[in-house]
Amino acid sequence: MNGGLTVGERLVGGSPGEEINAFAAKIYPICRSITGDGVRKTLRAIRSHIDLDIHEVPTGTEVFDWVVPREWNVRAAYIRDQQGRKIVDFAESNLHVMSYSVPVHRWISLAELKQHVYTLPDQPDLTPYRTSYYADNWAFCMPHRLFESLDDERYEVVIDSDLSNGSLSYGEYLHKGETDEEFLLSAHICHPSLANDNCSGVALLTHLAKCMVGLRTRYSYRFLFAPGTIGAITWLARNEDHARRIKHGLVVSMVGDGGGPTYKKSRQGNAKIDRVIAHGLRHCGLKSTILDFSPYGYDERQYCSPGFDLPVGLFQRSQFGQIPEYHTSADNLDFIAADHLALSYRLIAEAIDVVENDRGYRNVVARCEPQLGRRGLYGAIGGDKGTAEANMAMLWVLNLSDGRHSLLDIAERADLPFSLIRRTAQILSDHGLLSVCDIEADGAR
Amino acid sequence: MNGGLTVGERLVGGSPGEEINAFAAKIYPICRSITGDGVRKTLRAIRSHIDLDIHEVPTGTEVFDWVVPREWNVRAAYIRDQQGRKIVDFAESNLHVMSYSVPVHRWISLAELKQHVYTLPDQPDLTPYRTSYYADNWAFCMPHRLFESLDDERYEVVIDSDLSNGSLSYGEYLHKGETDEEFLLSAHICHPSLANDNCSGVALLTHLAKCMVGLRTRYSYRFLFAPGTIGAITWLARNEDHARRIKHGLVVSMVGDGGGPTYKKSRQGNAKIDRVIAHGLRHCGLKSTILDFSPYGYDERQYCSPGFDLPVGLFQRSQFGQIPEYHTSADNLDFIAADHLALSYRLIAEAIDVVENDRGYRNVVARCEPQLGRRGLYGAIGGDKGTAEANMAMLWVLNLSDGRHSLLDIAERADLPFSLIRRTAQILSDHGLLSVCDIEADGAR
Amino acid sequence: MNGGLTVGERLVGGSPGEEINAFAAKIYPICRSITGDGVRKTLRAIRSHIDLDIHEVPTGTEVFDWVVPREWNVRAAYIRDQQGRKIVDFAESNLHVMSYSVPVHRWISLAELKQHVYTLPDQPDLTPYRTSYYADNWAFCMPHRLFESLDDERYEVVIDSDLSNGSLSYGEYLHKGETDEEFLLSAHICHPSLANDNCSGVALLTHLAKCMVGLRTRYSYRFLFAPGTIGAITWLARNEDHARRIKHGLVVSMVGDGGGPTYKKSRQGNAKIDRVIAHGLRHCGLKSTILDFSPYGYDERQYCSPGFDLPVGLFQRSQFGQIPEYHTSADNLDFIAADHLALSYRLIAEAIDVVENDRGYRNVVARCEPQLGRRGLYGAIGGDKGTAEANMAMLWVLNLSDGRHSLLDIAERADLPFSLIRRTAQILSDHGLLSVCDIEADGAR
Repeated sequence: MNGGLTVGERLVGGSPGEEINAFAAKIYPICRSITGDGVRKTLRAIRSHIDLDIHEVPTGTEVFDWVVPREWNVRAAYIRDQQGRKIVDFAESNLHVMSYSVPVHRWISLAELKQHVYTLPDQPDLTPYRTSYYADNWAFCMPHRLFESLDDERYEVVIDSDLSNGSLSYGEYLHKGETDEEFLLSAHICHPSLANDNCSGVALLTHLAKCMVGLRTRYSYRFLFAPGTIGAITWLARNEDHARRIKHGLVVSMVGDGGGPTYKKSRQGNAKIDRVIAHGLRHCGLKSTILDFSPYGYDERQYCSPGFDLPVGLFQRSQFGQIPEYHTSADNLDFIAADHLALSYRLIAEAIDVVENDRGYRNVVARCEPQLGRRGLYGAIGGDKGTAEANMAMLWVLNLSDGRHSLLDIAERADLPFSLIRRTAQILSDHGLLSVCDIEADGAR
Repeated sequence: MNGGLTVGERLVGGSPGEEINAFAAKIYPICRSITGDGVRKTLRAIRSHIDLDIHEVPTGTEVFDWVVPREWNVRAAYIRDQQGRKIVDFAESNLHVMSYSVPVHRWISLAELKQHVYTLPDQPDLTPYRTSYYADNWAFCMPHRLFESLDDERYEVVIDSDLSNGSLSYGEYLHKGETDEEFLLSAHICHPSLANDNCSGVALLTHLAKCMVGLRTRYSYRFLFAPGTIGAITWLARNEDHARRIKHGLVVSMVGDGGGPTYKKSRQGNAKIDRVIAHGLRHCGLKSTILDFSPYGYDERQYCSPGFDLPVGLFQRSQFGQIPEYHTSADNLDFIAADHLALSYRLIAEAIDVVENDRGYRNVVARCEPQLGRRGLYGAIGGDKGTAEANMAMLWVLNLSDGRHSLLDIAERADLPFSLIRRTAQILSDHGLLSVCDIEADGAR
Repeated sequence: MNGGLTVGERLVGGSPGEEINAFAAKIYPICRSITGDGVRKTLRAIRSHIDLDIHEVPTGTEVFDWVVPREWNVRAAYIRDQQGRKIVDFAESNLHVMSYSVPVHRWISLAELKQHVYTLPDQPDLTPYRTSYYADNWAFCMPHRLFESLDDERYEVVIDSDLSNGSLSYGEYLHKGETDEEFLLSAHICHPSLANDNCSGVALLTHLAKCMVGLRTRYSYRFLFAPGTIGAITWLARNEDHARRIKHGLVVSMVGDGGGPTYKKSRQGNAKIDRVIAHGLRHCGLKSTILDFSPYGYDERQYCSPGFDLPVGLFQRSQFGQIPEYHTSADNLDFIAADHLALSYRLIAEAIDVVENDRGYRNVVARCEPQLGRRGLYGAIGGDKGTAEANMAMLWVLNLSDGRHSLLDIAERADLPFSLIRRTAQILSDHGLLSVCDIEADGAR
């Protein structure tokens, strides 16, 4: 069993923050969208770490109510003034061209240009991120201050892009566990140079998958790297029956900033993953936020649609849309940090540890307390967490190990960290005071 | 279907506030009690608006634990001093004589008079409202300051009243809907010249019944105008089996002042009407109050007695007994206003709209979100309420239309007004994205 | 029926505070531990008041996971300095010797003495209370200031104690009621001269048992005076099948100080006793505290172990461990007072009154309110509590007496004291308006 360590303990070794940060930085410059070579390039970068299956789904494929769109690629894009100076250039930042812009090359008036430019008047030095996937259009994005400075009569606009039949790309990696029941970990891979949203999530899950190699786990772990919305829909359409195997799931996005942590519960609201993450955040030492499910957000929208209703929540640091950097050029590599990534990673690893190790025990003595003193158990665990807490953990585990409470149930009621409860149960079990048992149906709480 | 409008939309047309206010003013001067000609006169005034059935129940009729009392009528009542000046006169205000006062005509000492006078020492300029239905007695009510000024040795007291066999009168009006299931709307009609309590409620329900004429409704609507306590008991005794048809109900009293709104829940506590009114108050823009059921109040006491336990709550503006004007001469026509009556009326009409239009839909796509963009649905409703709210409404309706949530369930969970949820469901239904369905039993929440 | 008074009313006669206080003072000087003559002497003192059964369980008897330990007795213990002066002396306070200290008699260095002395550096004038039941050891306890003043090179330490085969002693008294269902009242009897912990509890229960003699009760009342932990375990091991008869229970400790009251709920969390005490504390006029169950505390740990899971809570004034006097020489007779003991006693007596008198009634009229006025019932109870409250009590009892609510259910929902609800039900019953009925299963709330 994983060299005496639990799955969670094995996962948190090394310097995950630095490694995740480095990989996020590597994929940051790539121009991604919901289709195209940028997505493929990113998937290949992930494949350099894990044995990723890359799928290509042809344009025109029907996926539930949707159709896989044409593939978009862009080679160059800029605005040039009458002196031939480039005002903005895709080569400098892929945020400058609206995603899915159709090709254009002509001279237009400043007034017409204004119809094709997005800025942020309230954040005049930042370039916004904009898309137009399903309406033929083209536009540039730039700092408001820069746009305000333009005074030429006419400008040359060039977007050298393709919108043509091709395919939608996504990657998945399956870590096989002892059972076919799955834990889904999903990150959207469609945003261009936005570091937190979502190079951070892609890099975190890549590192997690890499660390899982060789680990013996109870659940199978499915890692999905797909474009937002259409990618999740495509995967669900191609894996409709399979989706029933998903017992726990997390959408992982914006995990590199110092905010939160924030967790948005699954539609079910009291799924095990909801309880597991809430428990982890309660004991993480930061001021965390738990949000009720709402049908707006990331790909949990699709996983939690009524026809699936999967137990999938959203894990983030800052809440999407609630920070000024959101969907702007300020969401750059300076906005994410190894420390924040490391904490996000640890919280997810600990959640995995809980679902892997949650089980029921039965107090063998049951009638009255066992005599802990003669077994040398009082204070047996203490030290780091304090003897009092360790003793309370023993008393709680003994009191609630009645065939109706799992370790997570006990940790919640005792308001003590799951890891302490788990270690305590192990020690009591080693002393013959607990035996493993199934938890009675409907009696989990 | 009601010319394309919902029942609630049809009900709120015109200037209900002015019309209700005018009718309240018309019936204000009448001297009502639990029986007698004042009640009949009021019922005839209502019948000039709607096709009211007026019932007469003879004195002595047994109604559950009670007996219909003798009928009380009063022609004149006054106190005269030794100079022949009238100190108080029933002709000026019917509050001056205690309701159900037995006849009297004699000269008495000031000391004895004191035993037969009610005043409000803390509100010395106001006349209180007093009754003595079930104990033979007589009394006058007057301002404390006036009573304090009396210094004659003797006074002539005259109450020219009758207490004799007759009948108890009440009126009811039934608006027939598509089903026999009923929505009860009940107002007490036994208070004399008190504008808010309850000319306001009588006038509001009269207007509502009038507006309902010609409307196609799902429920039948029973309007009951009866004296408090004995009237409700009499109706229940004569309609015991019938009462089972009542699926929703409101007692309506004190709806013309600017306080509240206040809602006291039915004994059941989570009846549909309780949820409907709570939802309406949450979105009405005023600081409203929801009270748990208690067995003290108006005729909900009888409807919610354990042998009936009907889903009937109490709708008010200010809470009874909590305002200085309550049961005094200050509850006059200046205390009520068309604007307040209009808002009260609108809240009740909206509640009717909810019970009429609450139903279940099933998301036809169900698996993942439908592609709203290609149907032009994003922002389709917006404008008044804002596009963001409109989009959220669409996402919520789609997400929760799973055969287990009605529109009210969705409105509650989304924390959005029912009317927005209902309109959204209609639009989605028009686009073939929803189909009507029954809600699974016990799964409403 | 107890001379027209309820059980609770009969119990609170006389001057319970003074009598309890006097008995607590009488047993305070005795040196108790978990076994030995001090326990026997205390049990004999109790037997001078009630017909106590005293049980002796031989050393070595297996009781679940435990074994009855050797018996400990101590005749003398002191530390003498080189001048022959006694530094501390067991004869002055039995707290000076650690409970279960093995015998010792030798001269030791100050440094070695330090290994065998307990003090409280933060409370330098107080002597702590320490035990070492299950590890062979010896120690003295003394004020820190006194220990700091020691400067001799060597000291003579004498503990003239026995640890030898004998027995564990406990006492029980059963008040037989009409049924075999029991109310357990348990006090630990193993602490030496600590007045609040637990001479107060022992004395309170002794008085309660004495007052119960001759009373007709519905439940049988079992009073258990046993050493903490091992005593409760021993009793449970010898009465395993019997324990199923326990329908309500309280561990009573630290009931003589002016704090709290504090109640720690049973493991079940919503047992009747939990509701009864919570109701009593809500109406006691003091700022009380209700704690959720935790597996740390007094003998409720054993009663609430998963193999028993009895409905037994812990009743205290101040919460154990939360006051500076806890387990120190400051927990002396000055720390407890007759007034506090009287209030604690009254709260327990009232709880007994609730479990004795809680029952269901059915409103005979049921359909609408009965006419209270003609029966002279309005204001019939009033006076002390106020007429309004009395009338509300009548309306609540009538409204909720539907075969699904017991008097306690009604008292909780009406937020009125049980005693008022009970008296009201009696009056309504005397007027033929209520009939006794069984409460439907699972419908109690």
